[in-house]
Amino acid sequence: MIKKPLLLACAAAFAALPLSAQDTKPEYPSPPEIVAKAQAEEWVAIAPSDLLVMDLAPDAKGKARRVVIQLMPAPFSQGWVGNIRKLAAAKWWDGTSVNRVQDNYVVQWGDATEKKALPEGLAVVPEREYVTPFRVGVMEQVWGVGGKREALMELLPRPPMGDNIPHFEDPYARSFSFVGGFPVAMTSASEYARQGASQTTPKLMLMPKDLWPTHCYAMVGVGRNLSPDTGTGAELYTVIGHAPRHLDRNIALVGRVIEGIEHLSSLPRGTGPLGFYEKEEERVPITSVRLGNEISDLPAFEYLSTESASFAAYADARANRRDPFFIIPAGGADICNIPVPIRRKTQ
Amino acid sequence: MIKKPLLLACAAAFAALPLSAQDTKPEYPSPPEIVAKAQAEEWVAIAPSDLLVMDLAPDAKGKARRVVIQLMPAPFSQGWVGNIRKLAAAKWWDGTSVNRVQDNYVVQWGDATEKKALPEGLAVVPEREYVTPFRVGVMEQVWGVGGKREALMELLPRPPMGDNIPHFEDPYARSFSFVGGFPVAMTSASEYARQGASQTTPKLMLMPKDLWPTHCYAMVGVGRNLSPDTGTGAELYTVIGHAPRHLDRNIALVGRVIEGIEHLSSLPRGTGPLGFYEKEEERVPITSVRLGNEISDLPAFEYLSTESASFAAYADARANRRDPFFIIPAGGADICNIPVPIRRKTQ
Repeated sequence: MIKKPLLLACAAAFAALPLSAQDTKPEYPSPPEIVAKAQAEEWVAIAPSDLLVMDLAPDAKGKARRVVIQLMPAPFSQGWVGNIRKLAAAKWWDGTSVNRVQDNYVVQWGDATEKKALPEGLAVVPEREYVTPFRVGVMEQVWGVGGKREALMELLPRPPMGDNIPHFEDPYARSFSFVGGFPVAMTSASEYARQGASQTTPKLMLMPKDLWPTHCYAMVGVGRNLSPDTGTGAELYTVIGHAPRHLDRNIALVGRVIEGIEHLSSLPRGTGPLGFYEKEEERVPITSVRLGNEISDLPAFEYLSTESASFAAYADARANRRDPFFIIPAGGADICNIPVPIRRKTQ
Repeated sequence: MIKKPLLLACAAAFAALPLSAQDTKPEYPSPPEIVAKAQAEEWVAIAPSDLLVMDLAPDAKGKARRVVIQLMPAPFSQGWVGNIRKLAAAKWWDGTSVNRVQDNYVVQWGDATEKKALPEGLAVVPEREYVTPFRVGVMEQVWGVGGKREALMELLPRPPMGDNIPHFEDPYARSFSFVGGFPVAMTSASEYARQGASQTTPKLMLMPKDLWPTHCYAMVGVGRNLSPDTGTGAELYTVIGHAPRHLDRNIALVGRVIEGIEHLSSLPRGTGPLGFYEKEEERVPITSVRLGNEISDLPAFEYLSTESASFAAYADARANRRDPFFIIPAGGADICNIPVPIRRKTQ
């Protein structure tokens, strides 16, 4: 069953190469080609109730602007995610606005007046929830059984061994992986050192202390005031530039934009401090924010399982591009340069 | 002379902290505070002849849109930079357009018809020029004398040693530094392994093989067709998303946008394949591109010397944010999360 589509994809890859290269080069599918030929069962459906759908006022040409956000799965940031569900149920964001667009950083939205009353019953989430301890329940999710453990091992940093072993070093953490389809970093190097690890200790001999989601492009986080405030979830932002990983563990991440990021990333940059809009008329009105299960015409979405063989091949290909355009494979990739494939469900 | 501004900056930092924290926490200036108090002699003037000034047609509200690009200094990419000087002298880009805006990737401009004749005498640059061999002349520029060697040692990856030593691992290279104010990666891990290095070999005992500039936000590169084509420099792009480091060593980088990136990054995304605009009227007209020395009203620009003590302190602070908003310093940073400070010259 697998062989036929593979051969078809190979034929397509060969077609782009000059004849001489056909004889000498082994073929390598590109990351999109790997994703396109993933098996149907490697895709994971996203429940509509785990989506947050934000409609902005139509643009200057009258075109609708819908932004679809996938909420962060357990065990991460669930206190804030619970608040966000309550805020959406209360229609709290209706009539608020996008107030800040800072180039190569974030777009932020919420109540510009800072006076709108919040619904009752929102949780005050403690700072320790920025990270998740690596306890047994989590360990099963990260290392699990079968292919998942293997996929994680593939992603752990290794010493240089040759051309074909990709490197996944992370200056912000000891290592990284993907949990429930989201990018996750594990234990800082300094914490690791305090556990008595040396640079040559085999990675799998040591348990990470903490896990945390990472500030990659399109991730959605919770604005807050100075510590010990952790924010409620009413003030949200998304990343529209190079990953600001210094925010990891300092602020809650509650999801990611999976469709319509361009309605935020292409907004005019604010000219005030931190990219805030200086005039009220510059703000972009938010007409409604609802959970996905309340939207009747919402398409179904799915992501490529980060435990699947196709995701492992995709991550490897992101780290070592060998498709025709490339002449030197990088030999590695950072966590935010391996975006998890997400698509509208095709059937 | 240094003491007074330091004390003033400390006072400002303290003012933002609650009283109890004043007693227990040592003060740490933020990255912008470090840059603001850098000495005048730590700033390096950028010659107007090393700037490329691109004027787009005014926006819908009639507002001027000027993009200022600093060309890459020697020894990097000088073949393409020479071509770009010739293209600007020939006013070749006047009347061309921005044709591609791909979200979280690049904005690209040039001749959409692909039929406009190029000026005579453009160099055909070989692929080997994507990297610069680490020969003596270059070594002096990277390791030099005095503070420069020390600054580089600070930026080399190290084993975990404790809280205060930032980590600068790079999954795309063996290490990185800054040369002439630009971010530069050095020798891939697999090439390093071929030189016989193990993970525990002291880094300074081994010479890097190659250096190359890196695809960070706002860097400008040269569009090309399939290898062995390397592009002329007529078709240019800039990065408007997370650093696409897989393009390093596969395509020439010729500079970076130092002012006006928002006129490119906030453009509507193209809806065709690769983000190309599908309709002619979507393209953004380029009215003129000139070298900076041909523009009479151009302000002077300067960058913070990447060999200066203030830059070393700034890089350290980017890797370990300890200003009041942050509760956990990251313990590291990637090369593209340490943007070189650039400003209009104030006097």
